[in-house]
Amino acid sequence: MQLITVAEYLFRRLAELGIKDIIGVPGDFNLDLVELLEHDQRFQWIGECNELNASYAADGYAREHGISALVTTYGPGELSAVNGVAGAYAEHIPLIKITGGIALAKQAKNLPLHHTLLNGAYDQSFKIYQQITCAAEILNFDNPGAQIDRLIESCYQQKRPVYLQFPQDLVTHLIAPPQAKLNLITSTTTEQTSKITKLIEQINAQLTTAKKVVILVGELVERYHLQTLVQQFLQNSGVSYVVSWGAKGTVDESHPQFAGMYAGCFSSQEVQDYVENADCVLALGWLYCEINSGTFSTKLDSARLIALNLDDGTISGENYLDIPFTPLVESLCHSNLKLASYPRSFAANYAIDPEQLSSQIEHDNLIYRLSQFLQSDDTLILETGTIAFTSGYYTLPHGCKIVSSVNWFSIGYALGATTGISLAKNSGRTILVVGDGSLQMTVQALSTQLRYGLKPIILVLNNSGYTIERIFLGKNSSYNDIQEWNYLRLPAAFAGEAYTRQVSTDKGLVEALNDTKLHANQLCLIEVMMDKYKQPPALQKLADIVAKMKK
Amino acid sequence: MQLITVAEYLFRRLAELGIKDIIGVPGDFNLDLVELLEHDQRFQWIGECNELNASYAADGYAREHGISALVTTYGPGELSAVNGVAGAYAEHIPLIKITGGIALAKQAKNLPLHHTLLNGAYDQSFKIYQQITCAAEILNFDNPGAQIDRLIESCYQQKRPVYLQFPQDLVTHLIAPPQAKLNLITSTTTEQTSKITKLIEQINAQLTTAKKVVILVGELVERYHLQTLVQQFLQNSGVSYVVSWGAKGTVDESHPQFAGMYAGCFSSQEVQDYVENADCVLALGWLYCEINSGTFSTKLDSARLIALNLDDGTISGENYLDIPFTPLVESLCHSNLKLASYPRSFAANYAIDPEQLSSQIEHDNLIYRLSQFLQSDDTLILETGTIAFTSGYYTLPHGCKIVSSVNWFSIGYALGATTGISLAKNSGRTILVVGDGSLQMTVQALSTQLRYGLKPIILVLNNSGYTIERIFLGKNSSYNDIQEWNYLRLPAAFAGEAYTRQVSTDKGLVEALNDTKLHANQLCLIEVMMDKYKQPPALQKLADIVAKMKK
Repeated sequence: MQLITVAEYLFRRLAELGIKDIIGVPGDFNLDLVELLEHDQRFQWIGECNELNASYAADGYAREHGISALVTTYGPGELSAVNGVAGAYAEHIPLIKITGGIALAKQAKNLPLHHTLLNGAYDQSFKIYQQITCAAEILNFDNPGAQIDRLIESCYQQKRPVYLQFPQDLVTHLIAPPQAKLNLITSTTTEQTSKITKLIEQINAQLTTAKKVVILVGELVERYHLQTLVQQFLQNSGVSYVVSWGAKGTVDESHPQFAGMYAGCFSSQEVQDYVENADCVLALGWLYCEINSGTFSTKLDSARLIALNLDDGTISGENYLDIPFTPLVESLCHSNLKLASYPRSFAANYAIDPEQLSSQIEHDNLIYRLSQFLQSDDTLILETGTIAFTSGYYTLPHGCKIVSSVNWFSIGYALGATTGISLAKNSGRTILVVGDGSLQMTVQALSTQLRYGLKPIILVLNNSGYTIERIFLGKNSSYNDIQEWNYLRLPAAFAGEAYTRQVSTDKGLVEALNDTKLHANQLCLIEVMMDKYKQPPALQKLADIVAKMKK
Repeated sequence: MQLITVAEYLFRRLAELGIKDIIGVPGDFNLDLVELLEHDQRFQWIGECNELNASYAADGYAREHGISALVTTYGPGELSAVNGVAGAYAEHIPLIKITGGIALAKQAKNLPLHHTLLNGAYDQSFKIYQQITCAAEILNFDNPGAQIDRLIESCYQQKRPVYLQFPQDLVTHLIAPPQAKLNLITSTTTEQTSKITKLIEQINAQLTTAKKVVILVGELVERYHLQTLVQQFLQNSGVSYVVSWGAKGTVDESHPQFAGMYAGCFSSQEVQDYVENADCVLALGWLYCEINSGTFSTKLDSARLIALNLDDGTISGENYLDIPFTPLVESLCHSNLKLASYPRSFAANYAIDPEQLSSQIEHDNLIYRLSQFLQSDDTLILETGTIAFTSGYYTLPHGCKIVSSVNWFSIGYALGATTGISLAKNSGRTILVVGDGSLQMTVQALSTQLRYGLKPIILVLNNSGYTIERIFLGKNSSYNDIQEWNYLRLPAAFAGEAYTRQVSTDKGLVEALNDTKLHANQLCLIEVMMDKYKQPPALQKLADIVAKMKK
C-alpha cells in the first residue's frame, strides 16, 4: 500500500468536503503545513491579517459552503481565534480549527519554548478549545488518520467547530491513506429508528387532528441542508409557514403559503397572533434563543407545540431525547401530510409604504431599499448592532438569504464573515450592512477582500458610535462614541481599488445601490450617514422590555 | 458604617493602585459598570476599537505603571482578549481582567441568553480564563469585597493576570467599604524567613569564595520593582553585570560595571565567553526561555550558577522551592557584599561602526540610529518579528528601557501595548518599531492613539510581509506576503493628524528621526523601506540552529 503523509491525509479529507479555500495566518508552528498547501493545486491559501478575522471568515465560508477549515499557529495565533470559534459553536457552524502544534518530540524535552505560557504545560490551548468545540484532539502517532476522521465527522454531523492540533513532526509522518469516504451522515441505531417511527406517528396524529396548523422553519433546517426537502414538505402540506428571525431566506418567502417572520413581539402583531392562535405549531430546527423568541415573548404553549430540535424536542407536551435531527425531519417530510390550512388575510412581509419614507436615511429606508435591491442568490449579511434588529423585516426573493449572528452577537463578526461568504459563493452578490463601531473591530478584513479580488457591496452605517448601546444606557456617554474615521479612505490606505460613495439621503442611497451594478467588478463601499440615536422598531421593543425588567 | 456599592469597592481599590486609565470596550453586560466609570473623576475611560487591542494596551499600561485594569463584556468581548491576557501570563504582567457578567438572578433563570453558547452553561469563559490567569473568580453576594481583594493581591504579588467576573446585579449591591489597605507584599512565613537566612548564607559563601563573579540581571527585577535596590547592590559588589535579552534597560547600562547583554549565542562572543568562564554567575530574576537562552545555547552549569527565580532557584547545584522572590533578593541586596571582580577588556555594547553602515536601511542602521536617538526616560518598544531579534543590541542611556514580548511572541502586540505605555508614561518618549505584517494585525490601535492624543513615534518596517518566516520556510511563498498597504495614509483614514514620512536610506532615517523632535506634539509615523529578505544576525543564528536541529 502506498503510504501518504498525515498532511496529505488531512488534505484529502478537506478536498473530499469540497473545501477549496483554506483560511488562516502563517506562524512558525504551522509553516510546514502551510508550505504544503502553497504547492497544492486543490487549495487556495487565504492569508488573513489576523486570526480573529480568519475565524470569522471561516465561519462565513462554512455558512455558505457547508464546512470550512481555519489554520493558525499554536499559542498566540490560535488564542486570537477563540471568540470566532466560540461564535461558530453557539451558531452551529461546522468549522475545522487546525492548529500547527509543537512537535511531540520537542514537547517531550519539556523546554520553555516560545509561544508557551512558561509554566511547564503545552495543553492550555487544547483545554481552552475543549470549552468551545464539540470535539478536540491533539494528533499523535498512534492513528492520526482515525483522529482526523473522527474530528471531521463530529464537525459535520454536529454542525459545531472542532479543534485539531497538528504537531509539526506529524506533518510528514507516513500513514495509510483513507480506506473509505467520510461518514457524514449521523448513523441511527435500530432503537432510534423505531423511536423515530413512533414519534412520526405521534406527530402525524397531532398534526392531522389539528384544525389550525402553522409550520415554523428555523435556522437548523439550513444548517442541515434540508431546505429543498422542507420546502417540498411545506408545499405538500398546504398550510402557512413562517420563518424564525434567524432563518430568513431558508425557505421560499415569495411563495403564497409564506406567512411572515415569527419572533414573538419582534413580529408584526398579525403574524404573532396568527402563530400563537394556531392549535398546532410545528417548529423545525428552531433555535430557541433571545432574539428568535423576541426576548422570550413568544407564547407557544407546549401542548400545541411540536418542536423538533437537534437531538431532542417536544411532541404533545412530552419531551424526547437522543433522536438525531436529520432522520427525524426526513421521515416527517416523506410522510407527505396534507394539513388543515388556517386562513389568513394579512401581508406576510413587513409593510413599508415607500411614500412614507423619510428623506434622511432611517432603518425603514434601508429595509425597503435593500429589499428592492436584492436578487435571487444574493446573500445579505447583517452585522450585530442596530442593523441586526432589522433582519426579520426584509422582503426576500426566493434563493436570497440573510446571514447574521443570531445569538452570539459579536460585533466585528460580519465584516470578517463577508470574506468567507464571498469566497465560497458560486453566484449572486454578497451585500453587507455594518455599523461603524463594528467595522472598526475588524477593519483589516477589508484589506483581505481587496487582496483576493472579492467584490462585496458594503454599506457602513455611520451613526457616530455604538448606537445600539445608547438606547440601554449612556445615551450621550463618551464610551458610546468612537473615533469618527474617514471610512471612504480605507480602500486607498489598504492599497485597493473600490467604488466609494457617501450618502445621507434616501435618494442618494438608491443611486449608490444602482451604481454598484455599474461597478460589479469592484468592491463597493457606501458610507451611509445616519442619526446617532435612531433605533429600529424591534430594538425599541427590546429596550422597553429591558427597562420594564429593570423596574 | 456607610455602605458602598461593589463597583465603588472595586474603584477604590483601583484608585489605591494608582490606576488612572481604565482600558476596555463597552458591551451590554458591562454598561452599568462603564457608566459609573464615565462619571468618576478618578478615572479616564479609554475606549479601544476591539478587545485584543485593549488587552495589549492593558499589558503595556501594566508594564509602565505596575498594574492595569481591562474591562470587557461577557462572552464575545472577553473571548477576543484571551490571547492578550495569555501573553500577560507568560510575560509576568499584572493585569486585572474585569468582565461585566450576566446578572446572577438572570443566570438562575437558565434562559438561552444572547452572548452565551446556548448549551445551558454560563461558565465557559471563566473556565477558559482559569487556564491563563493566576486566579479567577465570579463575584457573588457572599463577600464580593474579599473576592476583589484576593484577586488584586494575587495579581500584584504574582505578577500575573487575574480574572474578575462582575455580574450586573452586583454592580450597585451595597457592602462595607475596604477596612484596610490592600496587602501588596507577599507575606513570608517564619519558616520561609529562616530558610531565607540560610539561603543567603549559602549564597554569600559561594559568592565570596568565587574568584570570577558575574551578575546576570533578568526581567523579573523590573517586574518586582527592585531595580533601584539591585542597582545599588551591583555597584556595591564591584563586579561586572550583564542583562538578559529581555531585561535591556532594567539597570544602568551606561555604568562602567555594565558588561553587556547575555543570551548565549545571541550575545557577542566576548560577552558569552566572559559570562560562561566565570566561576560564579548570580542570576537575579532571569526568565529562562528560548530567547533569553539564545535558543538554549547558554552554558551555565548548575554548580557555578546561583539562580534566584520567582519561587524557586538553584544555589551550588541544589534547588530550593517555595521562597518568594522579593524578600530573598532584598536580603541578598542588603547583605552588602564586596565580590571578586573579574577583569574584562571588551566593549559592553554591540559595536557598530557608523562608517560601515549601509546607505540602504538594514537592521544595523536601525540599531545604531535608534541608539543615538534614545534619551533617558524613553521607552523603546520592539515588536515580535525581525526587529525583536535586534533588541539585545541597543546602546541604552540610563533610564531608557526596551519593552518586548520576550517569550509569548504574539505579533500585533507591540502596537497595542504602545497605547498603554504612552498613556501610563509620565515622562520620556514612546518609540515603537513594528513590522508591516504585525501592524496589520492590530492597526486599529493607531486610531485609539490618535483619539486620545497620544504621541508615540512609530517606525513601520515595510519589508513586504512576514520576513521573519522567510528565513525558516517559504522564502518566496505567497503565504509570507501581505497586502502592501499605503501605511502613511492610515492616520488620515482614521481621521487623525500625524507627522508622516517614508524613508529608504540611512540619511532619510536620520532626518526623519530628527524631524520627530519638531513634531513632538504629534503622533509620528515613519515608514522604513527595507529589504524583503534581510535578517538581523541573531535571527540568522537562530535559523542556523533550527536548520541543524531539522537535520
